[in-house]
Amino acid sequence: MAAGPDKILAISGGVGGAKLALGLSRILAPEQLLICANTADDFTHLGLRICPDLDTVMYTLAGLNNTRLGWGLAGESWQFMESLGALGGADWFRLGDKDLATHVMRTHMLSQGRSLTELTRQLCRELGVEHGLLPMSNEPVATVVETDEGDLPFQDYFVRRQCEPAVRGYRFEGLEEAEPQAELMALLRDPDLEAIIICPSNPFVSVAPVLALQGLREALLACPAPVIAVSPIVGGRALKGPAAKMMREMQLPATALEVGRYYAGLLDGFVIDECDRDQASLIEGLGMKCLVTGTVMHTLEDKTRLARELLTFVRI
Amino acid sequence: MAAGPDKILAISGGVGGAKLALGLSRILAPEQLLICANTADDFTHLGLRICPDLDTVMYTLAGLNNTRLGWGLAGESWQFMESLGALGGADWFRLGDKDLATHVMRTHMLSQGRSLTELTRQLCRELGVEHGLLPMSNEPVATVVETDEGDLPFQDYFVRRQCEPAVRGYRFEGLEEAEPQAELMALLRDPDLEAIIICPSNPFVSVAPVLALQGLREALLACPAPVIAVSPIVGGRALKGPAAKMMREMQLPATALEVGRYYAGLLDGFVIDECDRDQASLIEGLGMKCLVTGTVMHTLEDKTRLARELLTFVRI
Repeated sequence: MAAGPDKILAISGGVGGAKLALGLSRILAPEQLLICANTADDFTHLGLRICPDLDTVMYTLAGLNNTRLGWGLAGESWQFMESLGALGGADWFRLGDKDLATHVMRTHMLSQGRSLTELTRQLCRELGVEHGLLPMSNEPVATVVETDEGDLPFQDYFVRRQCEPAVRGYRFEGLEEAEPQAELMALLRDPDLEAIIICPSNPFVSVAPVLALQGLREALLACPAPVIAVSPIVGGRALKGPAAKMMREMQLPATALEVGRYYAGLLDGFVIDECDRDQASLIEGLGMKCLVTGTVMHTLEDKTRLARELLTFVRI
Repeated sequence: MAAGPDKILAISGGVGGAKLALGLSRILAPEQLLICANTADDFTHLGLRICPDLDTVMYTLAGLNNTRLGWGLAGESWQFMESLGALGGADWFRLGDKDLATHVMRTHMLSQGRSLTELTRQLCRELGVEHGLLPMSNEPVATVVETDEGDLPFQDYFVRRQCEPAVRGYRFEGLEEAEPQAELMALLRDPDLEAIIICPSNPFVSVAPVLALQGLREALLACPAPVIAVSPIVGGRALKGPAAKMMREMQLPATALEVGRYYAGLLDGFVIDECDRDQASLIEGLGMKCLVTGTVMHTLEDKTRLARELLTFVRI
């Protein structure tokens, strides 16, 4: 029997990760790619179960994402939010009229006993997403951001407070009880797995919870396929989200090198942007290969080009 | 201590009842009017608790109702429904983007242990509805329509099947366990209660469940205030909904007189449309006064004029 095609596992947070996931989906067949999304920023709001990272990747792969806003759905409208405000409802978390269909469907299916994995598969199928996209776990995990104003649930910190409070640390409630995604664990034992790609997502609150799932780090280390990551820090800044601000607040230099240090021991290769080229040799000193290339993805061409370069990189 | 102003209790279903309720609200002070809405057509759809009659009255009193559609909110949009359809969700019950805010808020508040009465009061306050509007009960009651195709939950019969199956009967599940609205019962014992007005709503599925609440019929009969009803059947037809079709299918003549017969023993007065004037003496033969007037309410003037005539009628 011929061996199956080589497979890629991508670990993703929200927007940045979704861009690379889209690039990978354009150069890999559906059966070659599994994207595992962080669900530690999921939360229940107004009784609705919301999975921001999972949805961002799903909408992006479906070609339905709002490129102008950088989040949510294209052609979104806000009549629900306006009416909610008029009724005195909490309107700090913007739920678009179209987006709401996803949350209502998901909440309803969860209440019927369906797993997040199963219903994500169904929603993806309905939206024509052919590549594998699954939550890191079926069990709820909740990120708590420890700030100078006290503990904040992640979306409170991220959306309501616009990342304003200074971060001292963070923790993931429920993580120890969360069963890691079965398909993810199976893929790490699959001889056809060619590489694990950690997308350019926030290392602390998007990637860390996935890596901290029970047995996952051990499985990654035991797996013969190389693990590579793309730096979410470019020129000392995060392209999206609070990663750089969090690093400074946690007394870490906001550099690609520091992200490399954070992932050291796990990575076989690290991908940094051309503007951080001067950090390449220090990164290689951490015991990982370093690829310097353009990592900022504006166009679809940027995404597929980076995806192609990554696949070449892991094959070196 | 001076006596308070005279008070009116109105019992209402959806659209027709809401029109009269609006008329009454324009000629009575907030503390003079309590509208008690049927909740036996409430249902849970996609995990959302939906109270069609209660919302129709609330939106109408708030001046937010969609007069073109005859239901729902003015300026409604349907992006949620479209996306729901794209996700393979059940889209036979039209939930507008704006309307959805009510259902999400209500479902969330119910899940937090708030009562339907309490949250209805809150939603009304937010929408600027000053007159009393309350559900007939806090407990769920579910209308089952017995048809030639078997039993159907009410909204399945009414919306999904567009009242097409022939009706053999109906029943109200949960009614015996449902506690009648405390304010309604208190008002029936209030010496300031001047009249009870049964709005022009479907006698079988909108008014019957309210009247069948434990102890309510007895309290109505014991109450010295007159009970009057406005016929929902005009010229052999229901202005809205399946009342006339149901009557024919249950081997009853679809006439105002027959509605009078249905309410006989309870009513002190019955209001019929001018086009049914020939039934007036037969109606009076049932032991109730009969007022013949224009009962079709197109304009706000129609509604307030009818409301005024009703108050004159009960004072005769």
